[in-house]
Amino acid sequence: MKVHLLTIGDELLIGQVVDTNSAWMGRQLNLAGIQVAGIVSAPDEHDDIVDAIGHCLQRSQVVIMTGGLGPTKDDVTKKAIAEYYGVGFVFSQETYERLVRIFQRLGRPVTEALRQQCFMPQNAELLLNHMGTAPGMWMEENGRVLISLPGVPYEMKHLMETAVIPRLLERFPVAPRKHRTVLTAGEGESTIADRLEKFEDELPADLRLAYLPSLGQVRLRLTATGHSEPVLDRLLETQVARLQALLPDLIYGYEAESLEEAVGRILRERGLRLATAESCTGGYLAHRITSVPGSSDYFLGSVVAYANEIKIAQLGVAEATLQSHGAVSEQTVREMAEGVRQRFGADIAVATSGVAGPGGGSPEKPVGTIWLAVADRERTFAYRLQAGKDREKNIQWSTVYALNFLRRFALGEI
Amino acid sequence: MKVHLLTIGDELLIGQVVDTNSAWMGRQLNLAGIQVAGIVSAPDEHDDIVDAIGHCLQRSQVVIMTGGLGPTKDDVTKKAIAEYYGVGFVFSQETYERLVRIFQRLGRPVTEALRQQCFMPQNAELLLNHMGTAPGMWMEENGRVLISLPGVPYEMKHLMETAVIPRLLERFPVAPRKHRTVLTAGEGESTIADRLEKFEDELPADLRLAYLPSLGQVRLRLTATGHSEPVLDRLLETQVARLQALLPDLIYGYEAESLEEAVGRILRERGLRLATAESCTGGYLAHRITSVPGSSDYFLGSVVAYANEIKIAQLGVAEATLQSHGAVSEQTVREMAEGVRQRFGADIAVATSGVAGPGGGSPEKPVGTIWLAVADRERTFAYRLQAGKDREKNIQWSTVYALNFLRRFALGEI
Repeated sequence: MKVHLLTIGDELLIGQVVDTNSAWMGRQLNLAGIQVAGIVSAPDEHDDIVDAIGHCLQRSQVVIMTGGLGPTKDDVTKKAIAEYYGVGFVFSQETYERLVRIFQRLGRPVTEALRQQCFMPQNAELLLNHMGTAPGMWMEENGRVLISLPGVPYEMKHLMETAVIPRLLERFPVAPRKHRTVLTAGEGESTIADRLEKFEDELPADLRLAYLPSLGQVRLRLTATGHSEPVLDRLLETQVARLQALLPDLIYGYEAESLEEAVGRILRERGLRLATAESCTGGYLAHRITSVPGSSDYFLGSVVAYANEIKIAQLGVAEATLQSHGAVSEQTVREMAEGVRQRFGADIAVATSGVAGPGGGSPEKPVGTIWLAVADRERTFAYRLQAGKDREKNIQWSTVYALNFLRRFALGEI
Repeated sequence: MKVHLLTIGDELLIGQVVDTNSAWMGRQLNLAGIQVAGIVSAPDEHDDIVDAIGHCLQRSQVVIMTGGLGPTKDDVTKKAIAEYYGVGFVFSQETYERLVRIFQRLGRPVTEALRQQCFMPQNAELLLNHMGTAPGMWMEENGRVLISLPGVPYEMKHLMETAVIPRLLERFPVAPRKHRTVLTAGEGESTIADRLEKFEDELPADLRLAYLPSLGQVRLRLTATGHSEPVLDRLLETQVARLQALLPDLIYGYEAESLEEAVGRILRERGLRLATAESCTGGYLAHRITSVPGSSDYFLGSVVAYANEIKIAQLGVAEATLQSHGAVSEQTVREMAEGVRQRFGADIAVATSGVAGPGGGSPEKPVGTIWLAVADRERTFAYRLQAGKDREKNIQWSTVYALNFLRRFALGEI
């Protein structure tokens, strides 16, 4: 069984909105073992939508379409569906009563427009939408299924997870499968692929490994298929244990945990309070740390010391250090980490200083030269990174490295 | 004339990559006055690509396709194109010589695989790609055009800007048009639409207004069509002047300037040095300010004071203030701004303190309550925002408001 995705909306065609709905649906269907064979985006025009439905249903047994936002757009989509199947509309009393209840609770007037929204193509089976007003629709003819969902992302996601995917798997069974995701930081995809060459060669046929890279991080997704759930679990556990043995220095967590969440978890477990001192990362490191809800439990704060005078006055970096070694140096970044730790009364501190670019480089310290340090009461670890020429990427990359060194230092690994 | 976009790649269908190429192309074509009638994504399979080319060319006079990365994928695309037109391949000596020169300069070996890359569909006219190895291709039959571009975003963008769009406009002329973008911050789309109701009603037929909203900011794009360039310029200038008169408090800049760039421009012009004190924004405000190259000219640094003890020790907030008013209060945020300004020796300072959520709310100060302050040597301005329940959005939204208040305070507007 194959699926086509069909997204409707002029805003997609003029590039005002990026089609993240399709990407999300593709990911979820792929995880469930359902193959997406094509994606089509069509404008908010009756004839184009009818044509696109036909095109997709000719090529895949299942088509999932998402509409635009709002009642006007829903209307175009519903009329196109009715036209495609040659059916009329019926009034859904159940939907109407649900909408009236919702509107009365919100104190909003129940209008004729609301009543109009409750007319549905005759052959549509409705999928209850707990997150919004427009229900999903499931239509079936000659063994081919058309599913229509609202375009609002959280409504679409809710209906996909609770109704569409479970029902598709029931209607078109695929081989049972399970996934485990192993999270790494600190090396790129090609280095990891080198270290896993033998692992991949030896991987049994019922297991697959996918690399999902982002800046400074790679997620490794293992998929096992074709067995009962306990067997799949055992297969995955065996391979996860092998990965742990092969990449002990790189793995920071499992499944959906972010690197900053892993850092928070470790600091919380060990009762450590954190402070940061940032030059080249300019506040982005503190931002990533504080993007985790509850981070105030272990994060005291940060000094963003962009000017040298602030490094001296607020962090206690020695003027002599700055003069003889410069702001981007091992000596300075060590004093920054030690300074903020002491002044903030923190247990552990991390500091960054580098040339983010595009200006400020020199032959000895080209753009992308970045020093990182982590300090506790007893010792200080420092590391020199060589990043690239892109300011935004340098900031993000050095932040990922700083978080990872902080994590490994707190665990006593470095 | 209408265009279909066709993107090739399994990675799009499994949602590993979001199709930002199509969104960018849609935006650029729309700006040039060329209508995109549909977008199709197909897998890296010969038959599917041939089928998709036919589908798109039946519906639009022009189809722009982008391939995946790498020689293997290019190969599938080229074979599908040759099959669709029923043509063979010819060896492009010119392309081969160019590739050999590039490879020799990089010290990389000239292999047989490289030679294979230089066979092109017989009917393809090549578009020189200055940013990479694979040239673009332009094929034409019965007045319908198929254009094939590499999938690497910066190569695709380069070819679109230098070759594809200019040539399409020559081949299929559209009414001449020009755009001006007016940038606003501080109000949402609906408020601005209310204030511009009469303006929109009175807009001449040769002018259009588009709203491009993002969190706390709205870009207003005026498009004038159908006249000579000087007339278009005059039409746009007249309407931009009217917008300035209608939204003097909201407009911060024009065209592509970001809010943080506008802040930097104003501080630089006035010789003002900036410091920030952040609680709820957790470093994100400093990050946005330092994302601008050269921001070290006017930005001294920041104290991210997440814990109350840091607000007291590093910013000089009075313990009594925290005890009687709490961290999220007008009194605290004023003392934070004034404290960081004095301690950093800055001319101007901005501070944030709020309940970002999801935890930490109370009946008097629910999640989303945010206090902002701006201070200089003489006075302090404070403002209470009520944001929503989403932590990430609250951080971003309050940062946009803080930047905008800073800008207006520096200009003497508030």
